[in-house]
Amino acid sequence: MTINDTVQLLRENDNFILITHIRPDGDTIGSASALCYALRKIGKTAYLFNNPQFEDSYNWIAEPYVAPEGFMPEYTVTVDLADEGLFPRGFKGAVDLCIDHHGSNTSYAKNTIVLPDKASCGEVVLGIVKALCGGLDSTVADLLYVAVSTDTGCFVYGNTTGETHRAAAELCDAGASNAYLNKILFRTSSRERLALEGLIFSSLRYYNDGKTVIAILTKEMLEKAGATEKDCQDIASLPGRVEGAFSSAVIKEVDENHCKISLRTNGIVNANSVCGRFGGGGHKMASGCAMEKNCFEAAGIIADAIAEELG
Amino acid sequence: MTINDTVQLLRENDNFILITHIRPDGDTIGSASALCYALRKIGKTAYLFNNPQFEDSYNWIAEPYVAPEGFMPEYTVTVDLADEGLFPRGFKGAVDLCIDHHGSNTSYAKNTIVLPDKASCGEVVLGIVKALCGGLDSTVADLLYVAVSTDTGCFVYGNTTGETHRAAAELCDAGASNAYLNKILFRTSSRERLALEGLIFSSLRYYNDGKTVIAILTKEMLEKAGATEKDCQDIASLPGRVEGAFSSAVIKEVDENHCKISLRTNGIVNANSVCGRFGGGGHKMASGCAMEKNCFEAAGIIADAIAEELG
Repeated sequence: MTINDTVQLLRENDNFILITHIRPDGDTIGSASALCYALRKIGKTAYLFNNPQFEDSYNWIAEPYVAPEGFMPEYTVTVDLADEGLFPRGFKGAVDLCIDHHGSNTSYAKNTIVLPDKASCGEVVLGIVKALCGGLDSTVADLLYVAVSTDTGCFVYGNTTGETHRAAAELCDAGASNAYLNKILFRTSSRERLALEGLIFSSLRYYNDGKTVIAILTKEMLEKAGATEKDCQDIASLPGRVEGAFSSAVIKEVDENHCKISLRTNGIVNANSVCGRFGGGGHKMASGCAMEKNCFEAAGIIADAIAEELG
Repeated sequence: MTINDTVQLLRENDNFILITHIRPDGDTIGSASALCYALRKIGKTAYLFNNPQFEDSYNWIAEPYVAPEGFMPEYTVTVDLADEGLFPRGFKGAVDLCIDHHGSNTSYAKNTIVLPDKASCGEVVLGIVKALCGGLDSTVADLLYVAVSTDTGCFVYGNTTGETHRAAAELCDAGASNAYLNKILFRTSSRERLALEGLIFSSLRYYNDGKTVIAILTKEMLEKAGATEKDCQDIASLPGRVEGAFSSAVIKEVDENHCKISLRTNGIVNANSVCGRFGGGGHKMASGCAMEKNCFEAAGIIADAIAEELG
């Protein structure tokens, strides 16, 4: 479907429930909130489905849009959801419209608009909102800026293109508080998170001539830093910052004899193959697995497996 | 002067020497290198003045453009230099053209183009290069991307506007390798830098109900991390990442009884006034001073001075 087809569908319907994905991020929350705001602006009734995981992530953005108990939706829209596995079972087979940017979208909805060239779903919704409302205001620009900026790590990830920057320019021009939002989203950490980073960076382990960097995250470290799950977001990317690292892993202690491993590589080492050896998997550059090992032992095992993949 | 006046001057002259500022950053180096490349492309002879500090910063960018010994320049251009204090004495009073974006520019050159609304000098040079060469190629786009992205911390700082994103979009469209450059510029740190961050984050000190965060950087810490001056770039901004910090400082040990203080604030506390009490100064949100004190004593003194400023 095109933007115009989508806008027509939205105009013809009412009482929308908008669904965000599990482990909601800035893109699904920002995009769904922006669409919700825009639908209300043209006189529709629209709410976000109350994702129980909003609490852990950007709740301050979603809050004004969350559906009250008892709301009876008539039209169901998923935002930034490639697959039915990513939303509550109750909506399976009942999605009227899916708005997405993942090339891997499984076309599970009655109607689907997917623009896989876009770095974020926010850019798809940007086009829809402009056509729906005839322009942007600063509230919707803020919401879409959250979507676009978080999905690109503030324009640093490899998915960022000229198109992404043009979308950001449009949002800034429309009044998005980019400086304020950037400070909150990308330049603020809890004391506990920084203490945890301190412990991680102080104890990095180097293998394979420095090409593999492994961070070990024990329960003792979490306790020492006073950190919880909330402070561990995107921790898997930290050791990859080391110069010369072709592959990096974070090994998280579950208990004395169990650990979870997140592996990141630059693509030369296939992370999916390495994790596959231990019953895990994922993507070529980011995969995970679990081991029935002490995390220090696991570090040596995973480093050796990487060396073997390198050949 | 306008872009067109500037282009005319550049067309009328030859044998250019382009000057970058002391403690050169990505903006002065990227902008000057881009201008050098563009001048060569239209048949001119042009070189960068061999800034002895290139070695510490982005030498891989400047290298192909550095003047050989014995080059006799006929036309001197400063790039991203607000004041004569920022370049070698030999060029004082002898600058033909200054290309800059600092509102504080002291008009020291015979001809000056300053566009103070631009976040980076790279955006000024972008306009000049397009007019000079009739367009952009991927080499010049890479160089200007370095300039624009580094001066905005990859589009995260408060100086980033819609205009900045539009410039970035143009550079990406012209073939800038933004993903590759971002990885090198913003997502790679030396082992020593990360070890140093580890030590800093593990020993942050909180004052004034957590509104003031102070990092102490001793010679012992540098030694333990194996870090040198090169690994300390932009270290002053690190403690400001803590949630709730209105003001933050890095106190660097010079010796047992001497230290240097870099103070950053969100503007509610005037950093210039605080540092002024100790014979230092700077800007409202970023200032510095020195103290004849042990750095741990200095931390208490500066925290008290901040509390007094808060009233």
